[in-house]
Amino acid sequence: MIIVMQKGATPAQISAVVARVEGMGRQVHLSRGEERTIIGVVGDDRTFDRDQFERMDGVEHTVPILKPYKLASREFHPSDSVVDVGGVSIGGQAVVVMAGPCAVESREQLMETAWAAKEAGALILRGGAFKPRTSPYSFQGMGEQGLQLLAEARAETGLLVVTEVMSPSQVSLVATYADILQIGARNMQNYALLHAVGESHKPVLLKRGMMSTMEEWLMSAEYVLSHGNNRVMLCERGIRTFETYTRNTFDINAIAMLKQLTHLPVIADPSHGTGLWELVGPVARGAVAAGADGLILEIHPRPEEAVSDGRQSLKPKRFAELMSEVRLIAEAVGALPGDRRAA
Amino acid sequence: MIIVMQKGATPAQISAVVARVEGMGRQVHLSRGEERTIIGVVGDDRTFDRDQFERMDGVEHTVPILKPYKLASREFHPSDSVVDVGGVSIGGQAVVVMAGPCAVESREQLMETAWAAKEAGALILRGGAFKPRTSPYSFQGMGEQGLQLLAEARAETGLLVVTEVMSPSQVSLVATYADILQIGARNMQNYALLHAVGESHKPVLLKRGMMSTMEEWLMSAEYVLSHGNNRVMLCERGIRTFETYTRNTFDINAIAMLKQLTHLPVIADPSHGTGLWELVGPVARGAVAAGADGLILEIHPRPEEAVSDGRQSLKPKRFAELMSEVRLIAEAVGALPGDRRAA
Amino acid sequence: MIIVMQKGATPAQISAVVARVEGMGRQVHLSRGEERTIIGVVGDDRTFDRDQFERMDGVEHTVPILKPYKLASREFHPSDSVVDVGGVSIGGQAVVVMAGPCAVESREQLMETAWAAKEAGALILRGGAFKPRTSPYSFQGMGEQGLQLLAEARAETGLLVVTEVMSPSQVSLVATYADILQIGARNMQNYALLHAVGESHKPVLLKRGMMSTMEEWLMSAEYVLSHGNNRVMLCERGIRTFETYTRNTFDINAIAMLKQLTHLPVIADPSHGTGLWELVGPVARGAVAAGADGLILEIHPRPEEAVSDGRQSLKPKRFAELMSEVRLIAEAVGALPGDRRAA
Amino acid sequence: MIIVMQKGATPAQISAVVARVEGMGRQVHLSRGEERTIIGVVGDDRTFDRDQFERMDGVEHTVPILKPYKLASREFHPSDSVVDVGGVSIGGQAVVVMAGPCAVESREQLMETAWAAKEAGALILRGGAFKPRTSPYSFQGMGEQGLQLLAEARAETGLLVVTEVMSPSQVSLVATYADILQIGARNMQNYALLHAVGESHKPVLLKRGMMSTMEEWLMSAEYVLSHGNNRVMLCERGIRTFETYTRNTFDINAIAMLKQLTHLPVIADPSHGTGLWELVGPVARGAVAAGADGLILEIHPRPEEAVSDGRQSLKPKRFAELMSEVRLIAEAVGALPGDRRAA
Repeated sequence: MIIVMQKGATPAQISAVVARVEGMGRQVHLSRGEERTIIGVVGDDRTFDRDQFERMDGVEHTVPILKPYKLASREFHPSDSVVDVGGVSIGGQAVVVMAGPCAVESREQLMETAWAAKEAGALILRGGAFKPRTSPYSFQGMGEQGLQLLAEARAETGLLVVTEVMSPSQVSLVATYADILQIGARNMQNYALLHAVGESHKPVLLKRGMMSTMEEWLMSAEYVLSHGNNRVMLCERGIRTFETYTRNTFDINAIAMLKQLTHLPVIADPSHGTGLWELVGPVARGAVAAGADGLILEIHPRPEEAVSDGRQSLKPKRFAELMSEVRLIAEAVGALPGDRRAA
Repeated sequence: MIIVMQKGATPAQISAVVARVEGMGRQVHLSRGEERTIIGVVGDDRTFDRDQFERMDGVEHTVPILKPYKLASREFHPSDSVVDVGGVSIGGQAVVVMAGPCAVESREQLMETAWAAKEAGALILRGGAFKPRTSPYSFQGMGEQGLQLLAEARAETGLLVVTEVMSPSQVSLVATYADILQIGARNMQNYALLHAVGESHKPVLLKRGMMSTMEEWLMSAEYVLSHGNNRVMLCERGIRTFETYTRNTFDINAIAMLKQLTHLPVIADPSHGTGLWELVGPVARGAVAAGADGLILEIHPRPEEAVSDGRQSLKPKRFAELMSEVRLIAEAVGALPGDRRAA
Repeated sequence: MIIVMQKGATPAQISAVVARVEGMGRQVHLSRGEERTIIGVVGDDRTFDRDQFERMDGVEHTVPILKPYKLASREFHPSDSVVDVGGVSIGGQAVVVMAGPCAVESREQLMETAWAAKEAGALILRGGAFKPRTSPYSFQGMGEQGLQLLAEARAETGLLVVTEVMSPSQVSLVATYADILQIGARNMQNYALLHAVGESHKPVLLKRGMMSTMEEWLMSAEYVLSHGNNRVMLCERGIRTFETYTRNTFDINAIAMLKQLTHLPVIADPSHGTGLWELVGPVARGAVAAGADGLILEIHPRPEEAVSDGRQSLKPKRFAELMSEVRLIAEAVGALPGDRRAA
Repeated sequence: MIIVMQKGATPAQISAVVARVEGMGRQVHLSRGEERTIIGVVGDDRTFDRDQFERMDGVEHTVPILKPYKLASREFHPSDSVVDVGGVSIGGQAVVVMAGPCAVESREQLMETAWAAKEAGALILRGGAFKPRTSPYSFQGMGEQGLQLLAEARAETGLLVVTEVMSPSQVSLVATYADILQIGARNMQNYALLHAVGESHKPVLLKRGMMSTMEEWLMSAEYVLSHGNNRVMLCERGIRTFETYTRNTFDINAIAMLKQLTHLPVIADPSHGTGLWELVGPVARGAVAAGADGLILEIHPRPEEAVSDGRQSLKPKRFAELMSEVRLIAEAVGALPGDRRAA
């Protein structure tokens, strides 16, 4: 941390800041400039509350030097983390595709969708049993019955299952049925929930909050990691901006940036990232070209009958075409000198 | 709801949409324009999933006509709701002030702050026992011990207590000690939690998510209201924008707009809304001038020692001055023809 | 400026950075921490291109210490600047109100509006002769004929005139008729235009870009100031956010923050800041309570016939009421210990 | 346009709205619902000012049905526009690359960069002679001398030249030297400038404003088109969001969405879109995979000496590698069934 003093800071004010830093067992580097005195604090500043110093007399502001996350950082773990989920490797050479309906609606709908996902090459089935809905009057999901149907679909098709968990008390129930616990965008900073999945033994797919910075997102990953669960995957699903033609703005920069900042696998969700099925294909291709480790896609046999997110769901035929396109892009990226995620 | 057909939509596509609407027991108004056919759906569209129609062949897009919230709307309840909390009326003629530290840190800190709040004219004591922190390495609050200290402070000073609840399983515990349950910004769309406080019998202070539109915020209020709890207050605490000089952007428009849209009381939080103690005074005065029903403010006897949010906390002396200023503004607003919230 | 080296930076990389700084005639303070070496550069960093250092081997990032604007800063000019416009003082004790139609439409419309503005207590008449419109098919203003009508209205009513100038070649023409040159939000970073008004002798009302930070805004003011024109006023007119219920989000924080950062007067435009006439009153009151030096408001005798911005224009009767409200708030703020802009 | 009346709108209010619409020579479709009366206006609403109706008594709000741009729309011109620039086709089958330094700094720097661009396969040389800089104290470009150097580089290398024009009075000068006139992000709504380039006979590269919606961007294109110049290319260069790790957020959704909305070619600028050279490669690949017609990239022989944008500039070696990667992706996309821009 660096502490920048105000222009007219007095020697007594400077001494008080120095004394406080030293009183916390830290060393100080003092630099007197022409306009400002700058106090550098040596060592890890993750445990410091910068606010305390900003409120001292004569202090103008403080500047952090280190990123606030540690376990999630690439500095801490330089090589890529490969997450194993029931034999499927996520974060390795292959681009892994998760697909399925927004919500589990019925056995028929789920089985039809699961087989379509399977046949086109997806390895993991997505589908919501507990649905976070903006309106209390909207369909809230089938609950445990939906989880049972997902387990049935797994038994039938051999696909693994990813599904959302919405509260700490649901974690053990959902973990009974699912292979991957999904934390939704609205719960990215639900710390009680992060704590609970951190103590479970299931891999976690952590979606980015719709208005969360990459730093906050990695801090939420740090919650899960620091509670003992190191199988964390990040899922970019678009952020909220001023643009209204699309539901969200898919942040392709984040795909590339996270590869610099963290060792955790990065999954792209172009369905929520765009909100429009016509854009899902191009953005899915773009995400893979930029280095995403996987995709999560909404598909539905009859989107015009879907209880939710039909506007952004692909039909099975278009999904199968997209899988071919993604394969071509993945091969092109794999053919690059170095590995497919080379910058 | 209005359904706008594409330019080249065929008669068969139009008929299919009309048939579907009528199949749901609704009437249709058909309008054939020069460039587009438009299908109006008669009646309440809150229970409709517009996505289903947007995915039908020949449909360009749909437009909602009604706002999606009902119980929270001023149409449903034209007069202002006045929330009674232990004899204090919020949403009536008087501007109610809640003040206290960001976090309960110790008995001494809390009592000193509580007395300062009381003496300057606050009626309600704020203070966090469970703290949502971006970092897992930061102080997470004193937990139940913090709640006990808040109850002690109430017993000593006569102030009422507002404090945050972070998960459904904490609701009954927090409700034992607190007079108002606060839902924090990060949990505004934690639906399990909204459900739980909706079933409690305590008033709820619902903070706006930093990434939430007014519509989403009112929908979250609707969750609480629709589960049976009608003592809901909204708290504007700033939204996230591109501006970096301030922690958040306090949305004063929302204070005025909510008075049009809803009957619920609106509280302003300029501490989080600005993030800088120097701006808290001006923005607090502005919020009251614009019609806020109350203020919630962070104060601390020694902000430079606060474990969190010291940068935005007022010292008792400045808080007392601000209370005088707020009184002058409230009187000026009260002296307007009509009531103090007249547009 | 502070240069933060990467974790594994070599001594040679560090030496290269130091040599470069010293080669530019600057001194260096070196601080070797446990994880990072930090290089402090002594002196004014406004003329430095930090990018050059960020691209050197071994450099992680750089941090500016000083704000990049100088003439606009309160450090440079500690007391408030009071701008004199034809005998009217802006930035002094009185809150100055500018009012008028969005666009000059006809002699009748302008005269009727000007008299309404005058009678309610406005001192300055606003009205666009050259209109920046999103669509090439919308009314683009009356041009020079509109300027002549504004001058006529000034002659008749004694009001001063503020009107927008849209390109460098228009500056001398507009300056012939207007008392204040307005730079619109879309042109806040039109540097050729800022240069041109910087060389004129007329006061400038510089609107904030809808997408601009306070820092960028002050840098645009710096353009005008550095070209020799020191009569600059800043106008907060709302910023673009994700919120859709209002046209813009009026940034009341900016009113208070600018009073810390700069000596220039700050005017509030709640008409554009909200986009809805119902919200103009509350937000105008709030801006004055927060310390604004003036208001600029859109009024129209028959908003339902206005060629533009009718939705946010006040009728003369409501405008007159608002003037009374503003007077009450201004008095309340003036009655505070210290001056009306005391934090 | 659709006009939604308030819940309690009276028959007289409804009649007044209908009379007004009919008075403008338009037909009306009236739809009386349970809660609201809805008035549909038949025909093109691009020339309507919706504000006028929103301000009439009893009107709640209005809803546009048609997009406000026409010449830029794919409806108006269903097939892709291919822009010819001196024999190079932009918007056709090949992905066209423009590359060069942020600013022209010297003959040596420009020639060295131009040859590196040429050898790696770029067809067009970029380089700023007039630079829009946030600070009045930063290097503002070499001016006409820079334009002469660009023309020299064209003569030597055979590359075409794209460079920025910043004011209407510069258009004829810049058009003397350049093959493509670039409108920068800050000037996207500088209507005097759009008007001027619309009347020139040079192709225009229109950058998206950093906080402009796609609709506003297409409206700015409409300005150029409607003044007679139909060689317009759109350039996505990232938008401003709350994220701070990257300079801008590259909007890959826009690449895909514009292919639906407009026939104009779309160029991607991942240099400004990310602000970090490490991210330029992945995002460039992503943009091409999503269907971009071209790339514009900043390169510099010694980025650590660049007077501007060094942080986001590629060195020639990395640029050459990226060109190979882009070729692989372009081939993969070209190999898709249908053309390379198939959704």
